[in-house]
Amino acid sequence: MTKAYILLSGGIDSSALLARANLIHEGSVKAISVDYGQKHNIELVHAANVAKHMGISHEIVDMSFAMGKGGLSDPSLEVPKVSYEDLPHGVSPTYVPNRNMLMLSMLVSKAAADPDAEFAYYGAHAEDSENDAYPDCSPEFVNAMVKAVSIATYGKITLDAPFVDNTKAEVVANGEQIGVPWELTWSCYEGGLIHCGTCSTCRARRDAFIGARVTDPTVYREVPT
Amino acid sequence: MTKAYILLSGGIDSSALLARANLIHEGSVKAISVDYGQKHNIELVHAANVAKHMGISHEIVDMSFAMGKGGLSDPSLEVPKVSYEDLPHGVSPTYVPNRNMLMLSMLVSKAAADPDAEFAYYGAHAEDSENDAYPDCSPEFVNAMVKAVSIATYGKITLDAPFVDNTKAEVVANGEQIGVPWELTWSCYEGGLIHCGTCSTCRARRDAFIGARVTDPTVYREVPT
Repeated sequence: MTKAYILLSGGIDSSALLARANLIHEGSVKAISVDYGQKHNIELVHAANVAKHMGISHEIVDMSFAMGKGGLSDPSLEVPKVSYEDLPHGVSPTYVPNRNMLMLSMLVSKAAADPDAEFAYYGAHAEDSENDAYPDCSPEFVNAMVKAVSIATYGKITLDAPFVDNTKAEVVANGEQIGVPWELTWSCYEGGLIHCGTCSTCRARRDAFIGARVTDPTVYREVPT
Repeated sequence: MTKAYILLSGGIDSSALLARANLIHEGSVKAISVDYGQKHNIELVHAANVAKHMGISHEIVDMSFAMGKGGLSDPSLEVPKVSYEDLPHGVSPTYVPNRNMLMLSMLVSKAAADPDAEFAYYGAHAEDSENDAYPDCSPEFVNAMVKAVSIATYGKITLDAPFVDNTKAEVVANGEQIGVPWELTWSCYEGGLIHCGTCSTCRARRDAFIGARVTDPTVYREVPT
């Protein structure tokens, strides 16, 4: 029986979300990851390892044909090497057009077709939408989607993004209490086999551990400054 | 250059929508259809023919792996043989879980990734959501999605469902003025090679032509009563 479906990238936020949902729903959860042609598709292996570590069923869905290309999936574009806060406001260089709505719609479709499921979880956190970097992580976006999902599923599925008002450091501090296997998670957008330490997401990862006063187990090619 | 993306099932409403968008945007439109494992996948051939007739670029996207099964895609379920108005209220037997949100998200993703695109069109009409048959065709659903799409695309893409307050007969009457090739369109859900004439959608098709006082060119196996 599966009560809740969780969108799992294999990063810090969705792994913490998975652990949280697993506790709340006492193991009756399922994790779903998406192959959208991301250059850092190593995250899919990490997602599988995180789910396996928690004893949770995991599926990878190929949505590459359904999605337009963006900074994370277009081989001709480079990922930026500065902190999110040092990026110019507006469309993020790592934005993939409407990616999150498409992934969430898939998650909800799977949940709506499952007779036992009631929840679909989304790991967006407050810093994702700061400076308009990822508007599809904002509370306004989440609220519109919560409404659309409820209507479209005859009220069956509740979309929930419990971290939408939390900083990434708060997500880490919270996840640390419930044993999230940080060493299995993956953040780097560069596409290499170890965390680069210099892309925006590696920097945000490092900052979150420091902010939460949790030991960062990550091996970085270059330690973020 | 493509200014507008249109979700095309090959039925009456989306074909009329395609013709309308083609007029408004003077040919700079693209039609996208979805293979979701529907038993009546013959509609995809009709969609292709409708687009070809109008000289419009057309793509079929396979989303069968991303979608849960429902009445139209589960071989073990039969489609009902009564009018929509004679179905019990609530979840329609031909509802496919969250199908429309998923298809719209894909459409918007493609449009958002296209530098020239500004519009995504959805052919829902008023009778789709009557008696709660398809809540994901209701004005409330459309409004929530319009908001979510605008936020998620930095305001780039406008989702529009111009028939959301129109009856199907009004869609036909309107389409007749702009030369929609009705004979190329497909409505039947049964999965056969000619319109069955007895499923809910065949009945609605027939009623729309009668209501619009437009000649129905459809060959039905059994003429709807």
